[in-house]
Amino acid sequence: MKTLKPEPLTQEAFAPYGEVIEAANAREVRTINHGNTRRFHDLAGVEVGEGRALVSIFRSTPLPRPIPLKVMEVHPLGSQAFIPLSGRPYLVVVAGPGEFQVKNLRVFLAGPQQGVNYHQGCWHHYSLALDEVSDFLVIDRDGPGDNCLEVFLDEEIVIDY
Amino acid sequence: MKTLKPEPLTQEAFAPYGEVIEAANAREVRTINHGNTRRFHDLAGVEVGEGRALVSIFRSTPLPRPIPLKVMEVHPLGSQAFIPLSGRPYLVVVAGPGEFQVKNLRVFLAGPQQGVNYHQGCWHHYSLALDEVSDFLVIDRDGPGDNCLEVFLDEEIVIDY
Repeated sequence: MKTLKPEPLTQEAFAPYGEVIEAANAREVRTINHGNTRRFHDLAGVEVGEGRALVSIFRSTPLPRPIPLKVMEVHPLGSQAFIPLSGRPYLVVVAGPGEFQVKNLRVFLAGPQQGVNYHQGCWHHYSLALDEVSDFLVIDRDGPGDNCLEVFLDEEIVIDY
Repeated sequence: MKTLKPEPLTQEAFAPYGEVIEAANAREVRTINHGNTRRFHDLAGVEVGEGRALVSIFRSTPLPRPIPLKVMEVHPLGSQAFIPLSGRPYLVVVAGPGEFQVKNLRVFLAGPQQGVNYHQGCWHHYSLALDEVSDFLVIDRDGPGDNCLEVFLDEEIVIDY
């Protein structure tokens, strides 16, 4: 059995996979609305190709611990962003672009104020709520074509959390 | 002085202006991720025309009470969605599409779990945080053209809240 430990989620560590969506990561901050609002601008590269951007809410049930990884997924035609709405931390599992390989798996612990955007073509696990059922705002792609591929893992892998 | 009172925010009441983004409003709910997640699908009509969808965070400072309305804005080239990230209610002020008219003003009290998406061309006030500085996830449009027009109100209008 292989065990993975979560790493802290930082923009630098997550850069090969996508963006961490949080105000602190903004490269551009604008003052708008006559001084009343600060705009932390353009925090995620939304990719939809010929499709359109969808806004949905995902309500996820926590898995039992130790959390098993059984299936990974990829969206070849668009990005997918998750922003936590329940004020709770969650786990993010990625394996990068290209052919899926177990050795590429990494696990990050996302804080309750941290969203993530998976780049188009980045292998990832579905977002792993912890302890309680949790809602996420999701921005992904609607359009023609098969935009979700899965691979089932043939070795036993759990997250040590 | 004209005084406006907030109405409860419901999808039905808000339909002329856009969508209320909350799970309860989903017309389609899918079970995904091998039974682990419920997807409340397609909650907002994101309109970006020839542009692209931007994801940003707005950090808004509350106005002093009674809250004065001095300026309204419209985005003629795209929609704009706000999802509260600070777990607090806020006020939404709209006046619909077409020429701005004071008589069309309506104020809604949005709950901490309710986002809103303003349709392209819908006059609205910037989101009005209440009591404390509050963050909102914002999905709007990047692209060529002037996508923000403002009108300054020439009579004194306040919100009775």
